[in-house]
Amino acid sequence: MDYEVIGKRVPNIDAPPKSRGQAQYLDDIKLPNMLHSKMLRSPLAHARILNIDVSRAKAMPGVKAVVTGHDFPPVKWGTGYQGADQTTLALDKVRHFGDGVAAVAAIDEEIAEEALSLIRVDYEPLPALFDPLEAMKPGALKIHEDREDNIADRVNKAFGDVERGFRESDHVREDTFTTAPNNHAPLEPHAAIGLWHDDGNITLWTTCQAPFIVRRGLCKPLGVAEDKVHVIRSEVGGGFGGKMETMSHQIVPVFLSKLTGSPVKMILSREEVFISTRQRQPSIFKLRTGVKKDGTLVSQDARFIVDCGAYKGLGPIIIIIGAYMLMLPYIIPNFRYEGIRVYTNKPVGGPLRGHGAPQARFAMESQLDMIAKDIGVDPVDIRVKNSVYVGYDHPGKQQIFSCGFKEDVGSVAREMNWRERKGKLPEGHGIGIGASGLFSGVKYQPHYGGSTTIQINMDAGINVLCGATDIGQGVNTIICQIVAEELGCRFEDVHLITGDTRAAPYDYGTFGSGVTFRIGHSTLSAAKEVKKQLLQAVAPHLEVSYEELDARAGRVFVKGHMEKGISFREAIRIFSYAGNPMPLVGRGYYEPDTEPGTELVKKEGQFSPTYAFIAQGAEVKVDKETGEVKILKLITADECGQILNPINVEGQVDGSAVGGAGLACFEDIPHSNGQYLNSSFLDYLLPTTLDAPVETRGLEMKTIDPKGPFGAKEAGEGVMVPTAPAIANAIFDAIGVRIHDLPITPDKIMKALEKKKLEGTRT
Amino acid sequence: MDYEVIGKRVPNIDAPPKSRGQAQYLDDIKLPNMLHSKMLRSPLAHARILNIDVSRAKAMPGVKAVVTGHDFPPVKWGTGYQGADQTTLALDKVRHFGDGVAAVAAIDEEIAEEALSLIRVDYEPLPALFDPLEAMKPGALKIHEDREDNIADRVNKAFGDVERGFRESDHVREDTFTTAPNNHAPLEPHAAIGLWHDDGNITLWTTCQAPFIVRRGLCKPLGVAEDKVHVIRSEVGGGFGGKMETMSHQIVPVFLSKLTGSPVKMILSREEVFISTRQRQPSIFKLRTGVKKDGTLVSQDARFIVDCGAYKGLGPIIIIIGAYMLMLPYIIPNFRYEGIRVYTNKPVGGPLRGHGAPQARFAMESQLDMIAKDIGVDPVDIRVKNSVYVGYDHPGKQQIFSCGFKEDVGSVAREMNWRERKGKLPEGHGIGIGASGLFSGVKYQPHYGGSTTIQINMDAGINVLCGATDIGQGVNTIICQIVAEELGCRFEDVHLITGDTRAAPYDYGTFGSGVTFRIGHSTLSAAKEVKKQLLQAVAPHLEVSYEELDARAGRVFVKGHMEKGISFREAIRIFSYAGNPMPLVGRGYYEPDTEPGTELVKKEGQFSPTYAFIAQGAEVKVDKETGEVKILKLITADECGQILNPINVEGQVDGSAVGGAGLACFEDIPHSNGQYLNSSFLDYLLPTTLDAPVETRGLEMKTIDPKGPFGAKEAGEGVMVPTAPAIANAIFDAIGVRIHDLPITPDKIMKALEKKKLEGTRT
Repeated sequence: MDYEVIGKRVPNIDAPPKSRGQAQYLDDIKLPNMLHSKMLRSPLAHARILNIDVSRAKAMPGVKAVVTGHDFPPVKWGTGYQGADQTTLALDKVRHFGDGVAAVAAIDEEIAEEALSLIRVDYEPLPALFDPLEAMKPGALKIHEDREDNIADRVNKAFGDVERGFRESDHVREDTFTTAPNNHAPLEPHAAIGLWHDDGNITLWTTCQAPFIVRRGLCKPLGVAEDKVHVIRSEVGGGFGGKMETMSHQIVPVFLSKLTGSPVKMILSREEVFISTRQRQPSIFKLRTGVKKDGTLVSQDARFIVDCGAYKGLGPIIIIIGAYMLMLPYIIPNFRYEGIRVYTNKPVGGPLRGHGAPQARFAMESQLDMIAKDIGVDPVDIRVKNSVYVGYDHPGKQQIFSCGFKEDVGSVAREMNWRERKGKLPEGHGIGIGASGLFSGVKYQPHYGGSTTIQINMDAGINVLCGATDIGQGVNTIICQIVAEELGCRFEDVHLITGDTRAAPYDYGTFGSGVTFRIGHSTLSAAKEVKKQLLQAVAPHLEVSYEELDARAGRVFVKGHMEKGISFREAIRIFSYAGNPMPLVGRGYYEPDTEPGTELVKKEGQFSPTYAFIAQGAEVKVDKETGEVKILKLITADECGQILNPINVEGQVDGSAVGGAGLACFEDIPHSNGQYLNSSFLDYLLPTTLDAPVETRGLEMKTIDPKGPFGAKEAGEGVMVPTAPAIANAIFDAIGVRIHDLPITPDKIMKALEKKKLEGTRT
Repeated sequence: MDYEVIGKRVPNIDAPPKSRGQAQYLDDIKLPNMLHSKMLRSPLAHARILNIDVSRAKAMPGVKAVVTGHDFPPVKWGTGYQGADQTTLALDKVRHFGDGVAAVAAIDEEIAEEALSLIRVDYEPLPALFDPLEAMKPGALKIHEDREDNIADRVNKAFGDVERGFRESDHVREDTFTTAPNNHAPLEPHAAIGLWHDDGNITLWTTCQAPFIVRRGLCKPLGVAEDKVHVIRSEVGGGFGGKMETMSHQIVPVFLSKLTGSPVKMILSREEVFISTRQRQPSIFKLRTGVKKDGTLVSQDARFIVDCGAYKGLGPIIIIIGAYMLMLPYIIPNFRYEGIRVYTNKPVGGPLRGHGAPQARFAMESQLDMIAKDIGVDPVDIRVKNSVYVGYDHPGKQQIFSCGFKEDVGSVAREMNWRERKGKLPEGHGIGIGASGLFSGVKYQPHYGGSTTIQINMDAGINVLCGATDIGQGVNTIICQIVAEELGCRFEDVHLITGDTRAAPYDYGTFGSGVTFRIGHSTLSAAKEVKKQLLQAVAPHLEVSYEELDARAGRVFVKGHMEKGISFREAIRIFSYAGNPMPLVGRGYYEPDTEPGTELVKKEGQFSPTYAFIAQGAEVKVDKETGEVKILKLITADECGQILNPINVEGQVDGSAVGGAGLACFEDIPHSNGQYLNSSFLDYLLPTTLDAPVETRGLEMKTIDPKGPFGAKEAGEGVMVPTAPAIANAIFDAIGVRIHDLPITPDKIMKALEKKKLEGTRT
């Protein structure tokens, strides 16, 4: 298609205010008479609370309120699906290091902090569970006394006949892989300001990815109706899945505001971000796969055990995604999957980019290379051979509407000069490939879609109200591009109002690579509605029927005769002077088709409106003396449909690839008795510019998705999914050792080299 | 009508946050990297600027920018109608004490203030004009060199044959009255924060009455298109007409932001509010009136000379209102009027409650009592006799749609026990009456109406977007009442979003007693649109046609069978689940019917969609030893149509009556060579609780206006219009002296008593 704005390198509208320091992050918001709050947190991973004495804190000058768990409404909550398990502050027990125990509101942060030190909590330490395999065992101590066992969530999925599949396979192998906890590490810590109004309304200012989800999450713990809660999202300084759900740091200040009558701010410290928000959930992935000798996949049996930490949070869907992202992009006729999420006495797990997909793909893409080696097939060929395709009758009832996966793999192989280099580079230098499919939004909850309202006043400025959240991926810019494209007006005349759950219409939130897809549709519909009304008003003026009109380049004109027309601004004037009520309003709504009775745990069906497919090539050098891995290249082919804005996609590809490198080689959170040992940016190993891949690059792919707005689908999140196996495969190519456990740190490489040396054989 | 919410004593929704200190006024807004600015102002009333040296100020550490008039785009602006006459800062001449000369942006207010003291301005003093009569004289020095004379604006209006009317009159008298300047005296000073974005968009946070008017006003001086300007109105701490138009304190910080890349705040000092914003325009009202011996008004010739100060501002309409508010509420068959607005070297005049009406009514209602006395007719009778009425064929083509004026006068007279007490109270104790009509909004500018958009998401909260500004009169509460009434939902489920020119649809602004009238209509329309869609969706569910349904008390039900229904919340759910796009949107628009070719200066026509009529009785005691007037009572009958909220109307009646008392007896701004002598709350005589009338009371009147939303019309502003003549008339009744000049201060009374004593006669 010949677009004017779509697909163009339109600079991100949020970039100038952010780089100028004009953007207003949560901590920049200062309200009249605002109080500051701090939370007292458990120093133990598991303990009974015998007594809390807040009397000295309460008596301290400048302290306005002190609360403990029993002050809150006596309800448990949780954004999860299978029952609530968390209270806003701990009641009689703490279940992880950092669990909230008490909170203070005071006239400044220092007093609040000091008041915490005056609260005396008597704990009776309890034995703690840190290993999900231990926690799963029958008879293990129960972290939640009111539950049967420590299984937080369980999902099963199957099709075909797996056992027969294995019998019919020429080669079967079973491997186990593990992944580590990762922190989202947003530059901006989690933060909120709560204001409980006298009339029972609540305003919550917060940094978050999904203001409407946060709004809903406040209702139960505070005992209020959803429409009484007004969430105003501040600028988001990084989300990555870690600012989706409602957490105690958002509930507590609202409650403290109820007690004090003032707005109450809470800004988490960096350590609190680590220990009290969410993290990527560590996992154990056991995979048994059977193939024909030509590499055709026949059967697969998978078990995904996830350490969810002390509470469920919004994390359960990880074991659903683990299944779905194992079912793509390869044809596997016989499939059995069990996902189990297990409580431990560790901080709470939640979504982080990919959310189950990186864990599943690390296992699958590593094992696929091992199988390829076992049977003497090229890793590229085995991937292409088993690829799904448009119209493939997926036994799990996944529907493929567009698929450039083979082209992805081929392009990456060509770009890497695969045939000439694979297995032929000098010792210590290697290349590898990884691949994945990825969802473009999720569709398991009906009637929660995305919506856009456009209002145009006499000044002809196009005011777009939208509840979507830009967390850096650029959806704000995309919304303006879509409106400008459809209305044929200037991009800079589109003004976006967002982030306010009362001004903007509902949007489900930014997660699951769904917001641009969903809001793209609703915005396009709203713009179409505006355009139709406008052309109908202008048609008599130009003495044609409205179907003969078009809008483009800031003009409304007779199709094919741009000179027979008027400016967009004049068109608005004509609309108004024709007696039409102002403002001109257009409204758009989108929700993915949802099958009736769709549930989180189900045997089959579509998880997402459509899927993107990604292949990624990694090139590494490994220092065999130190075990250090230098990532030279990450080359990605993400056939993400029509690219709406190349700048955004490139930013996503680069950012995700670096994130993938972190997941693969750097990021881990070790603990001692449940206490995190590296809860700071000094100690937590985010890849720095020195660690990051020397080159990250996205290849341009040409898919157009029939379900996507302008043909677009997922772009970005999927890029980090195949990175870890691509690097693991490249390391194997370089030095002949296979690392099963993420992150692939120098000590693991040295140990593996040592073992290989001892064995005296190539693995 | 039997309303559920309309007409009820619903507490003002803005009251709790304001009384809690939660409301965010402009100075409460603190943005990241914000700078502070101050303006250097002329110490002379009229002078040539020979040179400005800003070099020392620019060099001062902490100073980020210094500007003078020549730094701005070379344009003149003005919100007035007949040509622009003002620059943002003075160019080569200052024209009044306080005229802006230079401005500084610095990292804090103290540095900005100190930097001002480092700016050296060389002035050549010029002779100055302070008296409009002098300024009007041919050959007077010209305040604006590029104009023919010092006449800023002129309006003529006539019907009938005035000279024949005087010949046919039995009695003709001519009197001259003067009124003083008054300050609006908002508790919150004028203030703004400007932010010029890199992409050319501008955000202006400001305290104002009409964000869309302020938006338009920024365009010319800054050279930007209207839709590029985003105005966010903060809570308004008092307006009274003084925060309607765009002024330099709003333009300058935006421009300083352009230079610095940071948001720039400007808060005026109290003295700056007096000398640099606006004031009630002092005037001379010459009135010649002829009557038949029974009191029937026959002919009237009026000349209204207004001192506009150094620039026109938004003030010109005062001489239009002077005409229209003289043409009501009495039948005057022959009428001639000239309004002239004259430049002087004084601070700029602008609208203040009534804006021309108090001046005209002070003259007319005072003279009417003098005429009544001359011809021996009772003041009450002469008012009733000459009253207009519904359907009266007004020779000036004013249309009267509802009129309870006779009832107003009758009710006040009865309440004051007029017949028994008028002229019969002991010396020093008197009663008097005054009257007026008042506009309910103005209708001279087509295509600028008011609009409301309602959005309802799945949570069933009713989100109302409206550009109207509540400046204390309670329109926010009224909007919620109207929506709740029409949708039959709970008042507290209506949530209002306002004050943002991009989120809210256009509204003309809060002035001219028009906002509730206009926005009442648009809100009602929007609610009707929502209701229709909702009932249509619910009808199949209840197995009736939608016309058979009603919504009331939080339920949608079959008319007459409230049990056959569902809750409002359930109705929204049904709407959504019926496949309708969400949110449910309703849109409403209202603009008064406007005759084609309507102009500011025209011979005839309707000024307002409808008029309210007010009578007011005053009871005073005058201390003949000191001249002090004690206002015992102000009893008002304002037949304001259907009362939408009695609490609001009562507040308006009380507040306006006290304001009227200030205008009548206290407020004046003396000057010395153009320098104001009382620019502080210590010196400016606002009536305190000790000065205020002992009793202010509104009588309940029963008019329903066919043009108004639910039958409502003007309520409040009109109450202060007849106060000055009512008090002047009561003073005459008490001590037999007639004061022609406002305010009626003790010294004027003592002088008049002295003169009367010398003359030895009763005037």
